[in-house]
Amino acid sequence: MKKLLVPDSLDKKYLDILKQNADVITFSDARKDEKILEDVNGMIVLGWPDFLDSERISKMKKLEFIQSILVGVNHIPFKDLQESVIVCSNSGAYSVEVAEYAWALLLAAAKRICEFDSRIKAGETDFKSYSKYAEEIMVLEGKELGIIGYGSIGKKVAEMGRSFGMRLHAYVRKVPEESDVSFYTGREGLEKLLRISDYVVLSIPLTKETNKMIGSKELGMMKERCVLVNIARGDIVDQKALYEHLLKKKGFYYATDVWWFEENHETMKTRFNFSMLPNFIGTPHISGPTALVRGKPYENAVENTLRYLRGEKPNNVVSREEY
Amino acid sequence: MKKLLVPDSLDKKYLDILKQNADVITFSDARKDEKILEDVNGMIVLGWPDFLDSERISKMKKLEFIQSILVGVNHIPFKDLQESVIVCSNSGAYSVEVAEYAWALLLAAAKRICEFDSRIKAGETDFKSYSKYAEEIMVLEGKELGIIGYGSIGKKVAEMGRSFGMRLHAYVRKVPEESDVSFYTGREGLEKLLRISDYVVLSIPLTKETNKMIGSKELGMMKERCVLVNIARGDIVDQKALYEHLLKKKGFYYATDVWWFEENHETMKTRFNFSMLPNFIGTPHISGPTALVRGKPYENAVENTLRYLRGEKPNNVVSREEY
Repeated sequence: MKKLLVPDSLDKKYLDILKQNADVITFSDARKDEKILEDVNGMIVLGWPDFLDSERISKMKKLEFIQSILVGVNHIPFKDLQESVIVCSNSGAYSVEVAEYAWALLLAAAKRICEFDSRIKAGETDFKSYSKYAEEIMVLEGKELGIIGYGSIGKKVAEMGRSFGMRLHAYVRKVPEESDVSFYTGREGLEKLLRISDYVVLSIPLTKETNKMIGSKELGMMKERCVLVNIARGDIVDQKALYEHLLKKKGFYYATDVWWFEENHETMKTRFNFSMLPNFIGTPHISGPTALVRGKPYENAVENTLRYLRGEKPNNVVSREEY
Repeated sequence: MKKLLVPDSLDKKYLDILKQNADVITFSDARKDEKILEDVNGMIVLGWPDFLDSERISKMKKLEFIQSILVGVNHIPFKDLQESVIVCSNSGAYSVEVAEYAWALLLAAAKRICEFDSRIKAGETDFKSYSKYAEEIMVLEGKELGIIGYGSIGKKVAEMGRSFGMRLHAYVRKVPEESDVSFYTGREGLEKLLRISDYVVLSIPLTKETNKMIGSKELGMMKERCVLVNIARGDIVDQKALYEHLLKKKGFYYATDVWWFEENHETMKTRFNFSMLPNFIGTPHISGPTALVRGKPYENAVENTLRYLRGEKPNNVVSREEY
């Protein structure tokens, strides 16, 4: 039987299923008896456990499989892992909750909901002070929606865009067959999508390639009146370039649920003062946790781990060289 | 040729079309020479012009047709008009912009966007203070969407609800044939819809019957965790009952673009202190004006007035006894 290391927070019903197929050890077991690490074959992780530092990882010579409960795997310390370790993302488990959140952010920005709500609550209750917004508020119907990253979340985002009567564009690595979406690949494709879109949703994993993918050059290509939504990872957007762009272009909105990393941890303490900008809307990386509460990410992670334990091919294996 | 009274703000292109079919007078013409009112046959109005008080209206013996540029006609002084005057709403001209706005409000409330944004901007930047929200945030997929008033706006709202995977319910006067919407009529139907819905959108005209349609009894029937969206008219909801309900039920959200009338004018100065409540989200009645800017309401109002001028049957004639 394989030795499987799992988070202490894993629900009993999942522990019970896993125990029928593996010798299950929790992180707190491993903390008490570090020698156990030498025999671990597989792992399920939520965030990466701090105690598993480079030195301890180097002792895990038998490790062959890591299943992430989070959809992204950018928190996995690939450089410390042996070449042979298979790492699986949790693509698909978050798509409903995260795509819904992307739409909430997009619409809040397009319709200026937060700005209005906070100004009215601060006592600005004269209709006249808002009349100029009738022209500034963005309409969705007939507009161009660009989706960067067309995985399970991107596809859900597109479905909703259809019902709003938008034209759909997606940046992909491999062009799929689909009738009403225009697909774009490569650097040239990315630039084309950025130039034509009224709304852009970032739903692409954070990899070496997508790190700071949206910098000052890319922002400069985008329409002056545009909403950029980020429900992927903060670092896909260059923080300094974004701040300068938002300062200059008042009709450009950035609405994000995700934040930049500082010293390996995501933080809402930004290096630039975004809190003064009405064209910046931020929420506390809550879209994923909403899915966690509903349970599907755990369910999918356990199912995929069972595939590995039974000797089947697991889903969502990521390409290590990209991280 | 009929004499037609129109707002000064009407675009030249519409004035030109109307002038081919009528003797067109603007409100400022009529203000300068009040005697003109006696000969007016038809009128196009945006808001009701203040100078047309009861006394002046009583002089308009030849008035037979009023076209509203606004979608609702609750601002028309029916009591002062002769029985024979036909009043037309502008149903259909605002549906895209208003339905999109309804979704922006619904999602902002469900996903707590404004609350998070303002707390983060106020310096609350520790992820931990938000972790409890993972359970409170509402998901849309599989949930019950109740639409009160299934005109052109209500139907648009339903279309978008479909793409979010929601189950659709609509309160109507006459049950239409449609496959995936459950219809409800009468008092019993209304109560049933209120009891089962996770989200309720008010998209019904303000009439004698719908005035304070949602009072403390109705609020008490609704789910404790529910979002009530109002893009119709403030007075459909009883202000005091709503305030008390929001104070007690923290998981109940009211998100509105429309406000209560005081002395015949809509005002954001409310009688109760909604600005202290995070479960109240307000915007400055901007959804309709967004449509006005795009022009469709003027276009539709002029088209319908041309029907009247040509002796055809105009669309959207309202039942006077309801107002």
